[in-house]
Amino acid sequence: MTTTDTERFQRGLKKLKEIDGQAGENVIRSLQQVAPDLARYTIEYPFGDVYSRPGLDLKSREIATVAALTAMGNAAPQLKVHIHAALNVGCTVTEVMEIIIQMSVYAGFPAALNGAFAAEEVFLERGLIEKPSSET
Amino acid sequence: MTTTDTERFQRGLKKLKEIDGQAGENVIRSLQQVAPDLARYTIEYPFGDVYSRPGLDLKSREIATVAALTAMGNAAPQLKVHIHAALNVGCTVTEVMEIIIQMSVYAGFPAALNGAFAAEEVFLERGLIEKPSSET
Amino acid sequence: MTTTDTERFQRGLKKLKEIDGQAGENVIRSLQQVAPDLARYTIEYPFGDVYSRPGLDLKSREIATVAALTAMGNAAPQLKVHIHAALNVGCTVTEVMEIIIQMSVYAGFPAALNGAFAAEEVFLERGLIEKPSSET
Amino acid sequence: MTTTDTERFQRGLKKLKEIDGQAGENVIRSLQQVAPDLARYTIEYPFGDVYSRPGLDLKSREIATVAALTAMGNAAPQLKVHIHAALNVGCTVTEVMEIIIQMSVYAGFPAALNGAFAAEEVFLERGLIEKPSSET
Amino acid sequence: MTTTDTERFQRGLKKLKEIDGQAGENVIRSLQQVAPDLARYTIEYPFGDVYSRPGLDLKSREIATVAALTAMGNAAPQLKVHIHAALNVGCTVTEVMEIIIQMSVYAGFPAALNGAFAAEEVFLERGLIEKPSSET
Amino acid sequence: MTTTDTERFQRGLKKLKEIDGQAGENVIRSLQQVAPDLARYTIEYPFGDVYSRPGLDLKSREIATVAALTAMGNAAPQLKVHIHAALNVGCTVTEVMEIIIQMSVYAGFPAALNGAFAAEEVFLERGLIEKPSSET
Repeated sequence: MTTTDTERFQRGLKKLKEIDGQAGENVIRSLQQVAPDLARYTIEYPFGDVYSRPGLDLKSREIATVAALTAMGNAAPQLKVHIHAALNVGCTVTEVMEIIIQMSVYAGFPAALNGAFAAEEVFLERGLIEKPSSET
Repeated sequence: MTTTDTERFQRGLKKLKEIDGQAGENVIRSLQQVAPDLARYTIEYPFGDVYSRPGLDLKSREIATVAALTAMGNAAPQLKVHIHAALNVGCTVTEVMEIIIQMSVYAGFPAALNGAFAAEEVFLERGLIEKPSSET
Repeated sequence: MTTTDTERFQRGLKKLKEIDGQAGENVIRSLQQVAPDLARYTIEYPFGDVYSRPGLDLKSREIATVAALTAMGNAAPQLKVHIHAALNVGCTVTEVMEIIIQMSVYAGFPAALNGAFAAEEVFLERGLIEKPSSET
Repeated sequence: MTTTDTERFQRGLKKLKEIDGQAGENVIRSLQQVAPDLARYTIEYPFGDVYSRPGLDLKSREIATVAALTAMGNAAPQLKVHIHAALNVGCTVTEVMEIIIQMSVYAGFPAALNGAFAAEEVFLERGLIEKPSSET
Repeated sequence: MTTTDTERFQRGLKKLKEIDGQAGENVIRSLQQVAPDLARYTIEYPFGDVYSRPGLDLKSREIATVAALTAMGNAAPQLKVHIHAALNVGCTVTEVMEIIIQMSVYAGFPAALNGAFAAEEVFLERGLIEKPSSET
Repeated sequence: MTTTDTERFQRGLKKLKEIDGQAGENVIRSLQQVAPDLARYTIEYPFGDVYSRPGLDLKSREIATVAALTAMGNAAPQLKVHIHAALNVGCTVTEVMEIIIQMSVYAGFPAALNGAFAAEEVFLERGLIEKPSSET
């Protein structure tokens, strides 16, 4: 890695920590043994290049990502990471749920329901809602 | 249709015009002969119910929709309608393109490239960019 | 909620119970804490509006839904709910499996195999087949 | 090809003609120059094996296929062929449209709208509806 | 089943064992109670017809399959079976990971990350890598 | 852009020309007016980073890409570019068609048929097959 690649990597790592916090770092660490280069690319391109761009604020970027991952419906772990991220960069619980409800229009009710259950897990992990009494 | 259904329909129609403008009305009109009930549902549920909700501003809602449709990659006409909509409710050309670029991370480069070409068509239709000289 | 929305909700709830039985009610209840409005919409639009329409019998509607969810392959919990539903409204075990086998043609063998395993779980839950001896 | 493979092929060809009529034969013929073995497999497995099975009537099979192709949203030519097929084996125009409307619930409104426009093309080709006056 | 169908089945079963080994046989066995005909088709068409064709070597065929299943992102069990298969027919651990990394370009980083974690499980099962120290 | 970013860009551009030839350069050029940064990223990450990696030969990389794009079924222009690319880096017409036929197993027959028609267009453009007599 040249010095400049290091700069790109460092910018990405800083952005990853700002956005995804611990959840993002855990993903990268768990990738590092089996696919260290993919871990590095995940820091460099999405975070060092894309999320570091001006032109769209971080909150709007996470709205876009939560919407896309809810709609695609085949990346549950990444959806949870980005619901955390959305909350980290200023989305409220209400705003996250509004994005997910809206996806019922574009990707159908199953995608929205599965997104809502993913959000519930994240909200519980962060103590933002209480465990439903019916499950205790 | 009861009075209250009419209210929901009217709220949806007003919201549709506010967001999608002419492009949205054209879609609805073209649906009305072959599937009038689907046309009505498209006004009632997405626009009368979902987009009329408080809790997330319209600009953020269109960011979510442009992201989802770019990522899904199988609804080109609707993506164009919502790129228009995003511009109608306050997104800049730059912001729209940032959302699309970001989708390369979540849905791959082909989805982002096809999104960028859809955006180019919309920007040209609105006179926001000029026709590339290589095509004249 | 106006009286008429209540009527639509009540019609949907009744239809949901008729089709999905306990499995559907469980989904709605589990949604109600984290996303009560999405729970309400799930009753109103799919069940109060769509499944309540004349023009296609309920058995045919569930054939369509089992086919779509098997083919999409990204909504396992909803597929199980609708395999229950198909059986509730008159499909036989054989007919459910025929739909799933047919999806190998349109969505590939992995989608069909995952559909068959989902069906096996439902058939076991309902006591329609016996647990394979190799697993006891 | 052995005699028995020929039997399977002949059974498939007969079933293809019964279900898809001219539209299906056209697809096979257009495949035959570039990918003759894929043309043969398309007759043998989907039609010679799957559609020839007892256990689910042809009308129900086409309901399943129209639902799946509408929901997947990435196979427009095949969706049109199978809307023809559904009509060939006994579905009414109303029933076809009901399946498509229902897919708004499972795959979102864009998938349903694109399905409705595909159906409109088929209904026009068959003279089942008239060209909308706004387009003349 | 005629003699010739048996030949096709036997050719498929032999090819399945050659490619997928124990993992493939387990899938077929687990299918056999609930959907014996789907189990038979899975042997006949994919393995008896397609993988038995000349014109593309088995290693290239498994490269294609690992790529497709990683990109589609909705068939985790089949992806694992085919990562085993790729290793069985001559792919190295490095080659498997290169295919998966490349899918970040076409299907996005979540698909590639989930593919990498699936590969890690397979590599661990085969003793090709050691359990990460952070997990012991 | 620093010198090192330029090196990465130059390596990507050279690799793009080696693999995709004129078809790839046309895509990049057509992107450059509306989304110049996305054009640059498309050169840097897929070609400068991924395709430039050792560990998997270019022919195998294109087998993976043709498989994935055929299976995903929502990126027709990119599929055509990569069928060209596969032929450029050593795949035969037969090998390309074998990959596409194989995708019928993993993504269904419609995806394989649409892939075969895309391949036919590319083969015709390159004069590798003759226009079917039925179309003249």
